[in-house]
Amino acid sequence: MILDRISKPSDLKNLSIAQLTELCAELRSEIIRITEKNGGHLGSNLGAIELIVAIHYVFDIESDRLIFDVGHQAYAHKLLTGRREMMENLRTEHGASGFPDPVESEYDYFIAGHASTSISAALGMAKARDLDGGDYKVISFLGDGSLSGGMVYEAMNNVAGTKNFIVILNDNQMSISESVGAMKLYLAKLLASRGGLSVRRLISKSLTFLPKKVSRKIEDCIKALIQGNNIFEEFGFQYVGVLDGHDLAKLIKIFTNIRDVATYKPVLIHAITQKGKGYAEAERDETRMHGIDKSKKYKYSDVFGKTIAQLAEHDEKIVCITAAMKTGTGLSEFSEKFPDRFFDVGIAEEHAVTFAAGLAKQGYKPFVCIYSTFLQRAFDQIYHDVVLQNLPVRFIIDKAGFPGADGKTHAGLYDVSMLQNFPQFIIMAPSGKTELEHMVKFASCDDDAPIAIRFPKAEAHDICPTFEFSLKSRVIAEGHTTLIISVGDMLKTIFDAVAISGKQPTIIDTRFIQPLDFETFYKYAKNHEKIIFISEDVWSGSASLITERLIFDKQQDLYGKIQFICADKISPLHCARMIQLKNTGLSAEDIARQL
Amino acid sequence: MILDRISKPSDLKNLSIAQLTELCAELRSEIIRITEKNGGHLGSNLGAIELIVAIHYVFDIESDRLIFDVGHQAYAHKLLTGRREMMENLRTEHGASGFPDPVESEYDYFIAGHASTSISAALGMAKARDLDGGDYKVISFLGDGSLSGGMVYEAMNNVAGTKNFIVILNDNQMSISESVGAMKLYLAKLLASRGGLSVRRLISKSLTFLPKKVSRKIEDCIKALIQGNNIFEEFGFQYVGVLDGHDLAKLIKIFTNIRDVATYKPVLIHAITQKGKGYAEAERDETRMHGIDKSKKYKYSDVFGKTIAQLAEHDEKIVCITAAMKTGTGLSEFSEKFPDRFFDVGIAEEHAVTFAAGLAKQGYKPFVCIYSTFLQRAFDQIYHDVVLQNLPVRFIIDKAGFPGADGKTHAGLYDVSMLQNFPQFIIMAPSGKTELEHMVKFASCDDDAPIAIRFPKAEAHDICPTFEFSLKSRVIAEGHTTLIISVGDMLKTIFDAVAISGKQPTIIDTRFIQPLDFETFYKYAKNHEKIIFISEDVWSGSASLITERLIFDKQQDLYGKIQFICADKISPLHCARMIQLKNTGLSAEDIARQL
Repeated sequence: MILDRISKPSDLKNLSIAQLTELCAELRSEIIRITEKNGGHLGSNLGAIELIVAIHYVFDIESDRLIFDVGHQAYAHKLLTGRREMMENLRTEHGASGFPDPVESEYDYFIAGHASTSISAALGMAKARDLDGGDYKVISFLGDGSLSGGMVYEAMNNVAGTKNFIVILNDNQMSISESVGAMKLYLAKLLASRGGLSVRRLISKSLTFLPKKVSRKIEDCIKALIQGNNIFEEFGFQYVGVLDGHDLAKLIKIFTNIRDVATYKPVLIHAITQKGKGYAEAERDETRMHGIDKSKKYKYSDVFGKTIAQLAEHDEKIVCITAAMKTGTGLSEFSEKFPDRFFDVGIAEEHAVTFAAGLAKQGYKPFVCIYSTFLQRAFDQIYHDVVLQNLPVRFIIDKAGFPGADGKTHAGLYDVSMLQNFPQFIIMAPSGKTELEHMVKFASCDDDAPIAIRFPKAEAHDICPTFEFSLKSRVIAEGHTTLIISVGDMLKTIFDAVAISGKQPTIIDTRFIQPLDFETFYKYAKNHEKIIFISEDVWSGSASLITERLIFDKQQDLYGKIQFICADKISPLHCARMIQLKNTGLSAEDIARQL
Repeated sequence: MILDRISKPSDLKNLSIAQLTELCAELRSEIIRITEKNGGHLGSNLGAIELIVAIHYVFDIESDRLIFDVGHQAYAHKLLTGRREMMENLRTEHGASGFPDPVESEYDYFIAGHASTSISAALGMAKARDLDGGDYKVISFLGDGSLSGGMVYEAMNNVAGTKNFIVILNDNQMSISESVGAMKLYLAKLLASRGGLSVRRLISKSLTFLPKKVSRKIEDCIKALIQGNNIFEEFGFQYVGVLDGHDLAKLIKIFTNIRDVATYKPVLIHAITQKGKGYAEAERDETRMHGIDKSKKYKYSDVFGKTIAQLAEHDEKIVCITAAMKTGTGLSEFSEKFPDRFFDVGIAEEHAVTFAAGLAKQGYKPFVCIYSTFLQRAFDQIYHDVVLQNLPVRFIIDKAGFPGADGKTHAGLYDVSMLQNFPQFIIMAPSGKTELEHMVKFASCDDDAPIAIRFPKAEAHDICPTFEFSLKSRVIAEGHTTLIISVGDMLKTIFDAVAISGKQPTIIDTRFIQPLDFETFYKYAKNHEKIIFISEDVWSGSASLITERLIFDKQQDLYGKIQFICADKISPLHCARMIQLKNTGLSAEDIARQL
């Protein structure tokens, strides 16, 4: 294999186009093989191969800075930079992260797990380089989905005049599920007009029958107009497009030209690629297909999706908003049944939240469905537009807890810490399937305040179903000596821990994190020698709410008894959620030892 | 006065243009008079008068929804909606807020203290209206500064096809201090070309010598091109501009037309206004000028500004970044002395932080200077781009604490709560002028981790200056019985409280909120009967860090002794900071009672 001979970017430099093409094929089959084994982002990585090979061939990745955006498309880059062995164990604790990470390799120059960050980071580097008098290139490799995030525009607003600054837009026209968005249409329009160039040529041609002087005058006018015809050019870029992102020879030729153009002004290269390119062949081979969808459990998000679709049939005020996470948050059924009441706004969490506030203001019942880690983008909008106006926006916080194989950039551990600053915000955590159904129903009826329901990316077990729901916490078991206060999905692990320990603690499921049912808590706390509070978020979230109340209620006698088992504030590695729970003392075995 | 007859929007309907013009003059002099008395945003409000009067005259503000963006430009709107009495006490606890607030009036349909939110909120309302089958208009009244915030683009990306949706862009071309930005240049370009219309007319004219058939063909081509020539049109708006935002008669005529056009597609009206319009006349009257700049104290931001400018002379790695808060954060001197190392990125906090991370990655020492309340916009970037890579970005968190007259939308109470999630983040709070100087120097030397220095908008007293600085907390006074742990600027209030009480407590100035010097704390805590921890932020910030450590160190004996005096989680009213401190139990008198 040619790939065997590549351990750093400069190893590509002496390959012929034919060899590079062969290399692309090798990368393609490696990525398919690894992803089938370990999961991960297959389609986007297959689409990005030729672009990444061309970048590595033309630019000097050892001194130029390559910054990814939509970081999950970096697999080919990882395979080309001495990480083949790590890639075998992709997304596990023994292997490579699914995202670029400077800790992993010097060629991953900047972290990239959340979208729309690369132009800002690259611009900071470019300004530093200019101050240093350097002339290396800074290259931002951007997925088209990132163009739905506002941060990119904030960055582009500041790019003009920056030299040796190149943005490569990998446009696979699929990033945002079904949602359209003006920018997506715009990119399609650029493709149709081949970036405006062909239109210009067309008009020039149609003027040949005129006297040269006149035609040139008109052409100049038209040229001036066409130059202004491109949004990226308005932001100060030299726009180059639209390129076929799989035509390796042409990409190399154009990238080589651009290396020189970029010394004068910032350049944006627009390339069209095909998501999943080369996978159709693989599909024919059934055994290779195997494994990709193997973890088809019935998850909390599935429960939410089913419940909200049912409720919406009888409540036409229910609307759902997501930020490019339709499938992930379980909204497929809802979106099909109620297309008018479903809004996928793109990777745009800030907008999603304030948009929902507008809907709530008009009497609708918006459910904003976003992963915990991405909700961080909207902290200010939650405060300013939702909380200050006490608008009943419902937040479905999915993947709240340990991130599993996605790793540290996707940690869902901070949502409660954010929301507990606002006492009127109701925060719930379901301990199982039926509890989540009750909570979604409750949220759909309660119009008094903002509400959040948080749950991890995990199987929606139902070890302890309920028929009735109330604002009180649930006493699951009455035992002695130790009182366990369980938040959300931890209940299952606690059941396992109790079984291991053979003890008989009292177990309370809080249901509500805020307002927490302190009446029940105090009642039981007094009769137990030891209290253990267990939650899958950082201390400054749920645990902090408890201590705040204990301090204010002057419950000195309880301080000495209580122990908190929650997530470390240190960001988790990429590996199975069960291992992450174990690493922070939240596994059944760990808890059993504390009983 | 005509204004005396206006208490609700419909009262304007029967006025003649001449009367409306007179009304504008009256509003202008009222706004000047009130602002001279109470402070506030003069220039932007004077610029917005004709636009607001035209909106109130043409639209039905009692059923149409008017949503402000850059909320501080709403004074004329407030004066027209039954709030003249409240406006007399503008920005005090007895009067109107300086920003729109639904609590204050049903005509303030949505809150607006932070920028770039209005299109999102308005779009939510418009979608709700469409689902309800309504046909009222939703109007977003936007300042051009808001176009530097990414959230606007996220919203615009979702606007296409929305009917009865009108954005009025009040372009006073001054919003971002000196910083340019591509969008600002773009708006200027639209003005120069009058939105492209005059260019089209020009070309059409120049084609008259051609046969009609040919010229029409070319014209069609050109029209098609020009239609695509406008960014707002690419986002799906009908663009109308550029209008003279002070020509009342014309504004009314065009707004009336647009009321009809908008039934088919979203419209964006681009009007140019002059910030401070009509103030030159007022300037001649010296007595009326009086009072506007009266509170010229030497503040913490001035100390920071002076210190950073001095340090930067000997350290060329120091760079400063702000998000349209140059003067407010004390950066004027730095920006003049080191223009190459100064970056005002616009109202773009997300970009500011990741941009700084890029600079830090390349070995620079970025100081990101942002008000506490606006830093909320960048919570995710702080986590993802700074903390996860442990990049030494320095955050100068100004206006950290109670917001004074700006009120609840500007509360600076949550920054520590955000940052304390990340243990490696160094958080400092200066107790006075020389301490801040030491801290800025310390931050400029420490390259190991992200650092924040937080201080309120307050006079930089120096009641207890220091000559040396260390990582330890400062024992200010050794007394008995009570131990006071003081965070940052609260030290001055504590001195006052001690004087009032006549007692002799021990006082420790923490210097560092994170990592807090627990060695000194424990040493003194053991010898005192009572411990009072005092901080100007919400409990979930500094106080939570203390309890977390007490719990983990199993310091049961201290729980019973310690008392926390910090800000309520409930958002503060608009009034003097001293009153806000009092309302939450942080005044010298309140503290004295606890000693």
